[in-house]
Amino acid sequence: MTGDHLPAGSTGRPHVVVVGAGFGGLTATQSLRHAPVDVTVVDRRNYHLFQPLLYQVATAGLSPADIAAPIRGILGSQRNATVLLGKVTDIDRASRAILLDTQQRVPFDYLVVATGARHAYFGRDEWADVAPGLKKIEDATSIRRRLLLAFEQAETIADAVEQRRLLSFVVVGGGPTGVELAGAIAELAKKALAKDFRRIDPRSAHVILIEAGPRLLSAFPESLSAKAKRALENLGVEVLLGQAVSACDAGGVTVGNHRIEARTIVWGAGVAASAAAKWLKAAHDRVGRVEVSPDLSLPGSCEIFVIGDTAKVVDAAGKPVPGIAPAAKQQGRYVAQVINARVRSRAAPPPFRYRHLGNLATIGRKAAVVDFGRLRLSGQIAWLLWGMAHLFFLIGFRNRFAVLIDWLWSYITYGRGSRLIVGSNHQAQPIGVDRGRQA
Amino acid sequence: MTGDHLPAGSTGRPHVVVVGAGFGGLTATQSLRHAPVDVTVVDRRNYHLFQPLLYQVATAGLSPADIAAPIRGILGSQRNATVLLGKVTDIDRASRAILLDTQQRVPFDYLVVATGARHAYFGRDEWADVAPGLKKIEDATSIRRRLLLAFEQAETIADAVEQRRLLSFVVVGGGPTGVELAGAIAELAKKALAKDFRRIDPRSAHVILIEAGPRLLSAFPESLSAKAKRALENLGVEVLLGQAVSACDAGGVTVGNHRIEARTIVWGAGVAASAAAKWLKAAHDRVGRVEVSPDLSLPGSCEIFVIGDTAKVVDAAGKPVPGIAPAAKQQGRYVAQVINARVRSRAAPPPFRYRHLGNLATIGRKAAVVDFGRLRLSGQIAWLLWGMAHLFFLIGFRNRFAVLIDWLWSYITYGRGSRLIVGSNHQAQPIGVDRGRQA
Repeated sequence: MTGDHLPAGSTGRPHVVVVGAGFGGLTATQSLRHAPVDVTVVDRRNYHLFQPLLYQVATAGLSPADIAAPIRGILGSQRNATVLLGKVTDIDRASRAILLDTQQRVPFDYLVVATGARHAYFGRDEWADVAPGLKKIEDATSIRRRLLLAFEQAETIADAVEQRRLLSFVVVGGGPTGVELAGAIAELAKKALAKDFRRIDPRSAHVILIEAGPRLLSAFPESLSAKAKRALENLGVEVLLGQAVSACDAGGVTVGNHRIEARTIVWGAGVAASAAAKWLKAAHDRVGRVEVSPDLSLPGSCEIFVIGDTAKVVDAAGKPVPGIAPAAKQQGRYVAQVINARVRSRAAPPPFRYRHLGNLATIGRKAAVVDFGRLRLSGQIAWLLWGMAHLFFLIGFRNRFAVLIDWLWSYITYGRGSRLIVGSNHQAQPIGVDRGRQA
Repeated sequence: MTGDHLPAGSTGRPHVVVVGAGFGGLTATQSLRHAPVDVTVVDRRNYHLFQPLLYQVATAGLSPADIAAPIRGILGSQRNATVLLGKVTDIDRASRAILLDTQQRVPFDYLVVATGARHAYFGRDEWADVAPGLKKIEDATSIRRRLLLAFEQAETIADAVEQRRLLSFVVVGGGPTGVELAGAIAELAKKALAKDFRRIDPRSAHVILIEAGPRLLSAFPESLSAKAKRALENLGVEVLLGQAVSACDAGGVTVGNHRIEARTIVWGAGVAASAAAKWLKAAHDRVGRVEVSPDLSLPGSCEIFVIGDTAKVVDAAGKPVPGIAPAAKQQGRYVAQVINARVRSRAAPPPFRYRHLGNLATIGRKAAVVDFGRLRLSGQIAWLLWGMAHLFFLIGFRNRFAVLIDWLWSYITYGRGSRLIVGSNHQAQPIGVDRGRQA
């Protein structure tokens, strides 16, 4: 059962192993479609996740299956691609093989590492229990459960102080994730749930967005940051800028010497690369991103490439390439070109150059900010553009169509279709017991 | 925080408590819309589940949110209804109150118990771990995970015997659940997954349906049972009749003295009512269904009603009323009439009479059997009728529309949109370790 994994029907052609089927890994694989190689894609999950819309699953607007597509389905017709469900535990640079937790070794001629990143707690990992982040489907359904249960519990109890705490929602981090989450939570409370309760008024919910830096969306121009702040405030979100969270527990957060009582805290700050640097024993920056050569290969191992959020890549001006889907896809396409040139013994393409297409973020269901360099938009037109861009890049016709239907439905009715409390904490818990994990 | 729960805005009107928001409880509540009462609906979940389509979630055809609608959303506009998320632990008949796990007491003037049923292992509860049943959303996503992981693991291993075991699927129970599951698993393997693997051929999967009785679908006429068997066999399902499972473990099942090796076993047999009889200290039958008076009230407590799968109800001919949605809805409507008559001091309606509308079951995506008494159909026309009936009874326009889209999509492409492996066992597990729970 263990032993070497060879590509299906071992053809003797060079074997490319791609670790991670996110935007970078999937694009690399698809770009190798016509190359004379066999590709094996290894992922811990059986699906590709469209992370930019994960916050909509967390706030009950979309279903997990709307934004996730089975990797086998995406690559089903690519004859030179094999999919392997497995968790990488190490990479053997010397003998050119990756190791899986099943003890299997997968030998490679070329390796593309695209294992992404996760959120980080700035060394305070003990906050993870009370302030979950948003990177995986399970994160999203867990946040959805917490949000919805907070309203349910507020409805059943008499204690006004605890009720207030249950109806207070803190989002930490003013990047796109935090901004989009805060806007969506405010809309959930003020629109979708408004008529559903009898003892509480969900519209009285208090949503607080906390950002340590001086403005929201620091990757955007300042004018759009200001517009995003105003749009959030119009939705009733309280925005705290220049204030770092110094403590975080099941009852709330502390910013400076100010205490905010809240039973639901969502973490949208910080970023840490995956364990790839450790596997590769490679040089990396403070947050774990691997240092790469101009062709995105690992210095000293020109057959190993590191792309996407796992790599530290800088653009022509020396600025770090942002951790967004288009950047990962450009890198995936680029390394496929490099590999294709090598196996065909052609000249190598010029060094990787990042082409910035723009930044988008949405605030609730009617506003967004769009920065296409010279073109800067905000408001409803930006929102339409944001919606179209996301629909366009969603993989698979079915997902695209299903998401469109869900959006139209909630646009017309303000309803949310996916308000299910499922999972381990699905049952009503005695309030006061197990409060640490749940409320 | 604890203490008595009173209906919102306590009006002094009679308080009706409905426990369980399944087909029976929800219909009872909605039928009391214009009655001069306050209704509190108590459920452990925040959603109403359309159980007849649960097998499609288990086989990756639909998403959980497609077949579940938030109770608060359904009852949002019914001003005399309050929803309470909570788990009942006991019922105090003498002082007329239900007790929740939060220590809250909910006093009632009238009580409707509609807590449903679950599957049963005929006293072999230790089989539950290896042969999960299908009653809850979590059951469905867990079965989906097991089914999909079995194919993934078969793809990665070299051992031909273990591969065979991984590609063998046993369904226990030849009622509608078992028949529909077996058909859907066969289609998943032979159509949806057919092109997705490189080392295994999913079409070689072996699906075995085991029924202890002499025929499938015992509630249907014999001619339709035979047609269902033939339709399943056309899909490649092996149907074993008159054979009871005598042993069941992580490696397979034993029927008579014949051993069937299979890593995935799904339980579709047996039924046991909820704990309601225990709470009520009431007389009940072998499977826990509460004995009720002709007006569905509890003998000795005329203000307590028991309906749906929780109650033992017989029709005019003395035959037990089947455990299907239309029966539960008729009973819900009936007890609402009885309560309405009592609070208005009108004459009580005549005893409950079950009106059998028909039986439907589907086999794969092109065949079904329909029994409307004199009208008996099978094949594609029956399948269309089955589809329309289920769409019609799905609650909520959005769910109806989303399901229609999913169905059309998979009808045209044979694809399955919801092939996600999520949850606690989502990661690839070392084969040979933890096999008991997962494979």
